[in-house]
Amino acid sequence: MSTQQLQTPEQHQVSPDGCYTLGQFDSSVCQELADRATALKGGATPDAKPGKALGLLFLNPSLRTSASFQRAAARLKLELVNLNSQGVWAMESEEGAIMDGTKAEHMKDAAAVLGCFVDVLAIRAFPAGVDLEQDLKDPVLHGFAKHAGVPIVNMESTLWHPCQALADWATLDQHQVPKPAKLVLTWAWHPKPLPHAVPNSTLCMAAQRGMEVVVLHPAGYQLHPEIMAEAHVLAAANGGSARVSHNRAEALDGAAVVYAKSWGSLDTWGDAEAETAKRAPLGDWCVTSKQMPQGAKFMHCLPVRRNVVVSDEVIDGPRSLIIDQAENRLHAQTALLERILS
Amino acid sequence: MSTQQLQTPEQHQVSPDGCYTLGQFDSSVCQELADRATALKGGATPDAKPGKALGLLFLNPSLRTSASFQRAAARLKLELVNLNSQGVWAMESEEGAIMDGTKAEHMKDAAAVLGCFVDVLAIRAFPAGVDLEQDLKDPVLHGFAKHAGVPIVNMESTLWHPCQALADWATLDQHQVPKPAKLVLTWAWHPKPLPHAVPNSTLCMAAQRGMEVVVLHPAGYQLHPEIMAEAHVLAAANGGSARVSHNRAEALDGAAVVYAKSWGSLDTWGDAEAETAKRAPLGDWCVTSKQMPQGAKFMHCLPVRRNVVVSDEVIDGPRSLIIDQAENRLHAQTALLERILS
Amino acid sequence: MSTQQLQTPEQHQVSPDGCYTLGQFDSSVCQELADRATALKGGATPDAKPGKALGLLFLNPSLRTSASFQRAAARLKLELVNLNSQGVWAMESEEGAIMDGTKAEHMKDAAAVLGCFVDVLAIRAFPAGVDLEQDLKDPVLHGFAKHAGVPIVNMESTLWHPCQALADWATLDQHQVPKPAKLVLTWAWHPKPLPHAVPNSTLCMAAQRGMEVVVLHPAGYQLHPEIMAEAHVLAAANGGSARVSHNRAEALDGAAVVYAKSWGSLDTWGDAEAETAKRAPLGDWCVTSKQMPQGAKFMHCLPVRRNVVVSDEVIDGPRSLIIDQAENRLHAQTALLERILS
Repeated sequence: MSTQQLQTPEQHQVSPDGCYTLGQFDSSVCQELADRATALKGGATPDAKPGKALGLLFLNPSLRTSASFQRAAARLKLELVNLNSQGVWAMESEEGAIMDGTKAEHMKDAAAVLGCFVDVLAIRAFPAGVDLEQDLKDPVLHGFAKHAGVPIVNMESTLWHPCQALADWATLDQHQVPKPAKLVLTWAWHPKPLPHAVPNSTLCMAAQRGMEVVVLHPAGYQLHPEIMAEAHVLAAANGGSARVSHNRAEALDGAAVVYAKSWGSLDTWGDAEAETAKRAPLGDWCVTSKQMPQGAKFMHCLPVRRNVVVSDEVIDGPRSLIIDQAENRLHAQTALLERILS
Repeated sequence: MSTQQLQTPEQHQVSPDGCYTLGQFDSSVCQELADRATALKGGATPDAKPGKALGLLFLNPSLRTSASFQRAAARLKLELVNLNSQGVWAMESEEGAIMDGTKAEHMKDAAAVLGCFVDVLAIRAFPAGVDLEQDLKDPVLHGFAKHAGVPIVNMESTLWHPCQALADWATLDQHQVPKPAKLVLTWAWHPKPLPHAVPNSTLCMAAQRGMEVVVLHPAGYQLHPEIMAEAHVLAAANGGSARVSHNRAEALDGAAVVYAKSWGSLDTWGDAEAETAKRAPLGDWCVTSKQMPQGAKFMHCLPVRRNVVVSDEVIDGPRSLIIDQAENRLHAQTALLERILS
Repeated sequence: MSTQQLQTPEQHQVSPDGCYTLGQFDSSVCQELADRATALKGGATPDAKPGKALGLLFLNPSLRTSASFQRAAARLKLELVNLNSQGVWAMESEEGAIMDGTKAEHMKDAAAVLGCFVDVLAIRAFPAGVDLEQDLKDPVLHGFAKHAGVPIVNMESTLWHPCQALADWATLDQHQVPKPAKLVLTWAWHPKPLPHAVPNSTLCMAAQRGMEVVVLHPAGYQLHPEIMAEAHVLAAANGGSARVSHNRAEALDGAAVVYAKSWGSLDTWGDAEAETAKRAPLGDWCVTSKQMPQGAKFMHCLPVRRNVVVSDEVIDGPRSLIIDQAENRLHAQTALLERILS
């Protein structure tokens, strides 16, 4: 699998503004967007786009993302088309499929139709979690990008959660975390195997911001090698670095930021029983105050399992940035939509 | 069953503007609405109605209809009340029912209440698909029309889908399909028995537009005789014709438009097993390029089962109008709401 | 359990405007809000708050409440963030919980995040109906009130439905029901045990309005003693009274208003089988025209089981106020939001 498979060329054909990953933007553009998010948080007036329309298509549940996109649309005076999975049937993504099963519509038709009704279309589509090769194609995101005819915003796909990453970039800036500082992305135990979108995007965001990134996880929980390769490219271009560690004490030593997140093993993708067995002995992978280095900030994208992924003491402590991260979703997305529609 | 049962007198008592079927409008009004839809598509400014409110009540899933009505509301600066089945309990429609079962509210109360909150109420209510006589009464649509006290827009009921029909009328005009041209509404195989709303409305729309309409289907898949009778009345008044054929070659010969749609048999309504057996040998009722007459346009309301109802080759070909049909939903509904609220 | 448990101090810490119960407002404020609702119904212009945002979080289904809050938001030009349970995961409410079960997010995090995105947050959270002590804490409402950092509006919680009560107060005024008149809140049979929010709020509203309130129910269906105590305090302060009766003829004699509502027994809370057995002999607790005193008005909050809770004859009769009550939801909520945001 090449990087091309993860970041297909279609994304660039549709629109230079469709935001699938931050990596597709120059670092200077990312920084401009983060700066604009910070300005909006500080009270700057959004550049309203009356008469333009934003579509939101949620194929999976959402609290923060739905709320922050609805509000961003309102702040920009956008006309809103809000659709969620409960109102929509299952969609086919395979080209040429003979659709005699349970899927009532091909996404190429849904995409082309929705593209008639709005000027920009934002989509949430989690992995099916059954077939890794299929999920690695990020089929819904790329299917919509190919066929919608309007810019696509990724509200979390199989592989990426760029709006969270942009909000996190702005959060790091607002808290004066230096660009060369050490950020540790640490795996945590969780009762279920979760998708890789947030860890992938966090890794690449921090690499692109020029940070010293350590991906800390137990053996068997590596991120995909193509994602790591992407991170190395981004780090090299921006003065940062990215490496893996399995040693919690070593990795966390001197960290300026501890970013906790659980994710499932690629080795047992789609096999819930094997995954459960594999992670059973890893319950102590919880971020507690004992692990937190002196002065380090704590980050998580939410929702979070308290006292499982992180202890109350840490997440409720003065160095926890979780609410700022969430609030910055609104400002980052407002900045992104401003840019796409201008 | 008389035509009265299909088009009850209530619809005219509530408001002359409530759109249950296109047939209730003079053909000249239909043409004005189609012309206005075309003008709006071409960039005409919608006649905004600030301060007026539109309610959307989806008792069934929707993608196109929900998106296009939300956008139409925004273009007209309407205040929107958006309700869907996931948020609403099951409703009773029987007058005088002793409500000690599972239904928590009578639609007469729901209708009267929603009518207090909005100026026009749009409803989607598919057939229950169990009892044909009950479904033929189109009970939810007429129950709301009787009790809401405001104009009702039909977003697809048991029997009719007039907004699709109006969008299709505008699409035919935009592609210069002559009024006397031959339109073949052809049945297609589908894994499930689908409602009759679209074929009924397509038939009556084309008859009212003055076209030569042929309803093509295998034996046992007739539309309801009262609907056919309504089509004959509309055709006679507008210089068109309507007839049935079971012969694909004969029917399709010389067609200017092939409109594909699957629907369930009235003979096996509510009996899934019998219906499945009945349609089992009919899998070749799929529109492929071999069946398409020279120069004929292809139409379908979407969502469509690709390579089951129609081959990719036809639906993705240059004479496929499906995306225009869908886009015209927005413009037709904007035109309709403008008229109802003016 | 003290009144403190029902009306925790948090509600006053967050904002003096958060409306958990009407009882937290002085009677003069309630009267001002009811008067404003009546003025808005009569055509007064809402005091728009452009740029302010309202969040709606429905953890349970809603028709009237969702419709009326959406419209109220539009009338006030509020930016709307609309979230429902279908889009949201199950939430933990226990402080310090080890979240390794099915609940994906703690409400303290959800509340803090949503509070970043809106200026006022309205919540619907019915009782879980399993553990009475837990439900009596009204955990979701108070959890959000404690952590959201913005005023909370109660769209029906375990214990209270103040927006319905305020609409009912305005309805009584509009129909010139004198403040000292007798209002009978009568229990009715229903196939399911329902929550106490509406009877609690109706009782306290009428007591606070200075009415002679009789709570009429069969033995074993008492409201919670703390709620009765609250009603006595409110009645005493406002020239009214509150008492219980098990005798339908005695209680209804001379009533100016019969307010029907079903609710479950506190004695069998969470035990569906015991509750069903307990209410089995009570099927004649239905309000029919025989029970209605001369000239008395009939009220119910809707949705209502017709011919189970009340006969069609009564609810469709000239003295039924149910549609006015529902319409006043819009005006009462508009008045409440105006006040909270001013």
